[in-house]
Amino acid sequence: MAQESSQIAPRYLTGDKAGLQEFLAKFDVFLFDCDGVLWSGDHLFPGTVETLELLRNNGKQVVFVTNNSTKSRADYRKKLEGLGIPSTVEEIFSSSYSSSIYISRILQLPENKRKVYVIGETGIEQELRSENVPFIGGTDPAYRRDVTPDDYKKIATGDESIIDPEVGVVLVGLDFHMNYLKMALAYHYIRRGAVFLATNIDSTLPSFGSLFPGAGSMSAPLIMMLNKEPIALGKPSQAMMDSIEGKFKFDRSRACMVGDRANTDIRFGLEGKLGGTLGVLTGVSSKEDFVSGDVRPHAYLDKLSDLLGSE
Amino acid sequence: MAQESSQIAPRYLTGDKAGLQEFLAKFDVFLFDCDGVLWSGDHLFPGTVETLELLRNNGKQVVFVTNNSTKSRADYRKKLEGLGIPSTVEEIFSSSYSSSIYISRILQLPENKRKVYVIGETGIEQELRSENVPFIGGTDPAYRRDVTPDDYKKIATGDESIIDPEVGVVLVGLDFHMNYLKMALAYHYIRRGAVFLATNIDSTLPSFGSLFPGAGSMSAPLIMMLNKEPIALGKPSQAMMDSIEGKFKFDRSRACMVGDRANTDIRFGLEGKLGGTLGVLTGVSSKEDFVSGDVRPHAYLDKLSDLLGSE
Repeated sequence: MAQESSQIAPRYLTGDKAGLQEFLAKFDVFLFDCDGVLWSGDHLFPGTVETLELLRNNGKQVVFVTNNSTKSRADYRKKLEGLGIPSTVEEIFSSSYSSSIYISRILQLPENKRKVYVIGETGIEQELRSENVPFIGGTDPAYRRDVTPDDYKKIATGDESIIDPEVGVVLVGLDFHMNYLKMALAYHYIRRGAVFLATNIDSTLPSFGSLFPGAGSMSAPLIMMLNKEPIALGKPSQAMMDSIEGKFKFDRSRACMVGDRANTDIRFGLEGKLGGTLGVLTGVSSKEDFVSGDVRPHAYLDKLSDLLGSE
Repeated sequence: MAQESSQIAPRYLTGDKAGLQEFLAKFDVFLFDCDGVLWSGDHLFPGTVETLELLRNNGKQVVFVTNNSTKSRADYRKKLEGLGIPSTVEEIFSSSYSSSIYISRILQLPENKRKVYVIGETGIEQELRSENVPFIGGTDPAYRRDVTPDDYKKIATGDESIIDPEVGVVLVGLDFHMNYLKMALAYHYIRRGAVFLATNIDSTLPSFGSLFPGAGSMSAPLIMMLNKEPIALGKPSQAMMDSIEGKFKFDRSRACMVGDRANTDIRFGLEGKLGGTLGVLTGVSSKEDFVSGDVRPHAYLDKLSDLLGSE
């Protein structure tokens, strides 16, 4: 989708005190992507804590937006705390939470089709529980095993000892214990009519300065087998933006998305028609991406803590 | 690829004695897809043995062509024998064999990059061994485990305790023990320059009258992460046809491909410029697919044993 605002060259604000002050004054709410913006892996960027403090001291609402589905909001708050970043659960939006909200409040499931078959880790389970959504799969050790000849027959015939007739949704997130059985079950549930949801479709997960399979890699085989895309709930899906807005009731024109990835974070802000988008060069996208790519932020910085230069 | 011959309506030969005789007389070699043509799952179609016998008695060369990479040719011969179909290993072409031939005889790998990292089962391993191709991964139980935090670091940094610097090829086939660690390793080997091969890219595997994840589902996450397609060695890839021709030195104009799937089997024969293609209605494609689809065989039958009507 071409965004008019994205085709203007972004403003470079590092070291531009007046420009920074002008930019900050435009917004009441800052939505932050985390990894690549506040920290990288387990390494907190210098000045992150002070920058968040500056924003809060100036009355700005801070929201942490993460596609990481393996953690619940409570887990994520602990992670922030462990890195020395004060936060509350209420300030955190994860794709696991966004997915749970979507299932419990937006999807209209028939009475007998309310169970979710989960591919993913404990973060998804915790958020589904918090919304009272019944689920199977996930971290249940019963699914962490080899497929047997008996499984094929039972899955093919819809035997209720292995295919739960109440499953109406398949939710696919990052699962470090992905296996053939889980993939086969997800496929069969969707073929039988379950809604195909993904917490997010990032193909890779950054770790130790490299990339590893992300949540999108769990959906990829299903997309190929079914020739069908999931409804994705993480960035840049606007389902996540709607969910954030539903909670904070903010004025989109007075909100700014901050991120390191043009095609997820910045796109998320642009498609959500936020008043501003701010790129930082401490993660995936390069200066070239921001300045002359297809999706351009309104402004960019070398690093987030350059915002401290507004003082 | 538009095939002129595929745009003519195919001839329906069931019950047409003169037509059958004329058709059979055109060919010296018959290449058979197996599942959906000779049998379905573990159910041998009536008349299969007699039909093959008729062809052999008339001096026709019979070749069994299968995308099943989990079995070696020797395993496959046993399967045929178990179903009551006489055959020799020499008559069998599997995608595991085709892949091994491609690696050993066609790929020109540098001296220190000759190892293959295998995602797949024992069939691939047996065929690689038969071509003296060194490999790691596959059914090695060391890879059938959860990923650990230590793995991420070692994989990211290319630590030789987990990343073998001699790997120059990643070969992806159907693996019933697929897991996160294997996927991460395959991704990193390809990023480091290994050639990305797939035994075949069928997204699904028919079993018990239903479908399960196929070899293509193992490649799908890698394709998404790398934004790169593998070189596929099974049908409809012409690498497999070249390998069959290399062995049998047949005249393509005197060969006929028999199959149940228009977009793999029939395409395989058409793109290989064989003299004929014959569809059967005992598998995936329907009469409509054959008669008015994009890829049409030269002739079709209700079932393979209708060839017996030529007598």
